[in-house]
Amino acid sequence: MTKQVDTDGKLAEFTQLVERALDGALPARADSTDCDFGRERLLDAMAYSLHTPGKRIRPLLLLCAADAVGADATAFARFACGVEMIHAYSLVHDDLPAMDDDDLRRGQPTNHVVYGEGMAILAGDGLLTHAAVVMMEPVAQAASSSQMTVAREIMIAAGCDGMVGGQAADLMAEGREPQLDLLAGIHRRKTGALIWAAVRGGALLGGANEKDSRALDAFGRRYGLAFQIADDVKDEVAPTEVSGKRPGGDREAGKMTYPSLLGVDESIARCRTELAAAIAELDVLGDRADALVALAADSIAPALAGRGS
Amino acid sequence: MTKQVDTDGKLAEFTQLVERALDGALPARADSTDCDFGRERLLDAMAYSLHTPGKRIRPLLLLCAADAVGADATAFARFACGVEMIHAYSLVHDDLPAMDDDDLRRGQPTNHVVYGEGMAILAGDGLLTHAAVVMMEPVAQAASSSQMTVAREIMIAAGCDGMVGGQAADLMAEGREPQLDLLAGIHRRKTGALIWAAVRGGALLGGANEKDSRALDAFGRRYGLAFQIADDVKDEVAPTEVSGKRPGGDREAGKMTYPSLLGVDESIARCRTELAAAIAELDVLGDRADALVALAADSIAPALAGRGS
Repeated sequence: MTKQVDTDGKLAEFTQLVERALDGALPARADSTDCDFGRERLLDAMAYSLHTPGKRIRPLLLLCAADAVGADATAFARFACGVEMIHAYSLVHDDLPAMDDDDLRRGQPTNHVVYGEGMAILAGDGLLTHAAVVMMEPVAQAASSSQMTVAREIMIAAGCDGMVGGQAADLMAEGREPQLDLLAGIHRRKTGALIWAAVRGGALLGGANEKDSRALDAFGRRYGLAFQIADDVKDEVAPTEVSGKRPGGDREAGKMTYPSLLGVDESIARCRTELAAAIAELDVLGDRADALVALAADSIAPALAGRGS
Repeated sequence: MTKQVDTDGKLAEFTQLVERALDGALPARADSTDCDFGRERLLDAMAYSLHTPGKRIRPLLLLCAADAVGADATAFARFACGVEMIHAYSLVHDDLPAMDDDDLRRGQPTNHVVYGEGMAILAGDGLLTHAAVVMMEPVAQAASSSQMTVAREIMIAAGCDGMVGGQAADLMAEGREPQLDLLAGIHRRKTGALIWAAVRGGALLGGANEKDSRALDAFGRRYGLAFQIADDVKDEVAPTEVSGKRPGGDREAGKMTYPSLLGVDESIARCRTELAAAIAELDVLGDRADALVALAADSIAPALAGRGS
C-alpha cells in the first residue's frame, strides 16, 4: 500500500515537474527586442499546441527511465520538454489540411483552425527547432558527449527514418489495401521510434549500465507497440469527450488501424499481451522501475476501459 | 596574381568539398529496411530541394571562417551541410501555397509542385530534423562541448527568434505600410541570423581567439545585411534565368523589399557600403581571411552586375 502511494506520488511529482518545465520552455515574451513584429503571434501559436493539456507520456517516459536506473531524474526535466515539443510539432503538422486535415485535437480546434495554415506550419517549425535548442542546453548532470548522443538519437527517431518517415508512409498509404505489416511499419516509425528514443534517452542520460539499458530498450519497443494499438482502439471506441476526436475518424478517413484489420477485441488482446511483455522486460530492474511500470499501465488503461480484462 | 589564384583555388576546393559532403549527407537508399514503405519518395523530395544547384553560401561561410582562424576547415564540411539543410528546408516551407505560394525556385518547379503539398511539408521537416542529426555527429576536431554550443546557436538562429520568426513576421507584414525598420527587422531574422550563425559557427569550431571571433562576428552581421539587400535587388532586376524567379515577383506579391522602399540605385549603394564595411571588419585577420573576402564579394557581385560601380 505504502509502495503504491510512493509510486503514485513519484509519478505525480514528475508530472508536475514536466508541466512546470514546459511552462518555461518557450522563449519568454519579455525577451522581445525592438524588431519583434510577429513574434508574439508565433509564440502564441507555438504555446497553443505545446500547452494543450496532454498526458506528457514521452517526457515522463524519459524521466521514469532515468529514475529507474538510479539517476536524479529532476535534472532532465527541461531536456525532456524537447521530446514533448517534437511530439507537439508533429501533431500540428499532421493536422494540416494537406495532411490529415483534422479540425479537432484533444478536444480543441487544431492549430491551423485558430492561427491559419501558414502560421501553423511555422509554429510546428518553431517547436521542432526549439526542441533541438532545449536538448542542447548543457545539463550539469550529463557529460556533454552523452547528452549530444541522446539528443541526436532523439532527432534521428523524429526524422526521415522515424516519425517524419512514418507520416510520409501514412500519407502515401491512404486508400491502399490494408496490411498488418504495412500498418506495423508505419506505426513503428510514426509513434514507436520517438517513444523508444525517450526511454533510451532517459537511460543513457541517467548513466544506465549495459544490462539495465538492454532491458529498457526492450521495454521501449514493446511498450511503443502496445501504445500504438491502444491509440487506434481509443480512436475507434472512445467518445469524443475522452479522445478529443470524432469516434472512428481515422477509419472513416480510410486509414489503416489495428481495429480495422484485427477487430476491436483482438486489438485489445494484443495490446494487453504487448503491455504485459513490455513490463516483464523490466523485471531485472526490480522495484526501481515501479514508476515506469505505473506510467506504462496508466497510459494504456483508459483506452481499454470497460472492455473485458 | 598567385595569391588571387590561390584564393580562387581554395574557394573552388571548399565548394567541391561541400558538394561532395552534400551528396552523402542524406540517409543512404541502401539502408532501407523491410518496413520502408514511402521512404524513397520522402528521400527523393528531400534530395530534390537539397541538391538543386545553389551557391552554398552558408556552408562556405562556415568553412571560410574556420579557415580564416587557421583551422583545417575540411573537417567541418559535413557539419556545414547541416546549415545548408536548414536553408533548403526553409525554402521548401516558404514556397508552400499557405506561405509565399511560389511555383518556381532556382529555375525549377518548387517542391510542392513536384511532390504535393503534404510531402513537401514532410520533406522540409525531414531536412530540418536531419540538419540537427548531422550537426550532432561527433566531429573529431571539435570538443563536444563547443560543437554542441555551435549546433545550438545555429538552431537558435533558425528558430522562433531567428529564421522562423522572420518568416512569421514576413507572413504578417503582407499588405502593411512599408517601413524600413520593419523590413530590416524581418530580414535580420529571416536571412541575417543564419548567415551570422554560420560565420560564427566556423569561427568557434575552428577555435578562434577572442579578437578574431569579434571581427568575424561583426563581419557576419554586416555581410548578412548586404546579402539581404542584394537578394532583393536581384529579385527586382535580374531576368528569370539568373534569379530563377519571375522579375519583381516579391514586389508584385505586395512584399516589402529594399528596392520598393529605397529604389534600386539607393539599394545598390547601401549594399556596396555594407559589403565594404563587412570586409573592412576582417582587416585584423590579414590575408588569412582572403577566401572569406572573395566569397563575400563573389556572392554579391552578380546581383549588382551592370549597375554602375
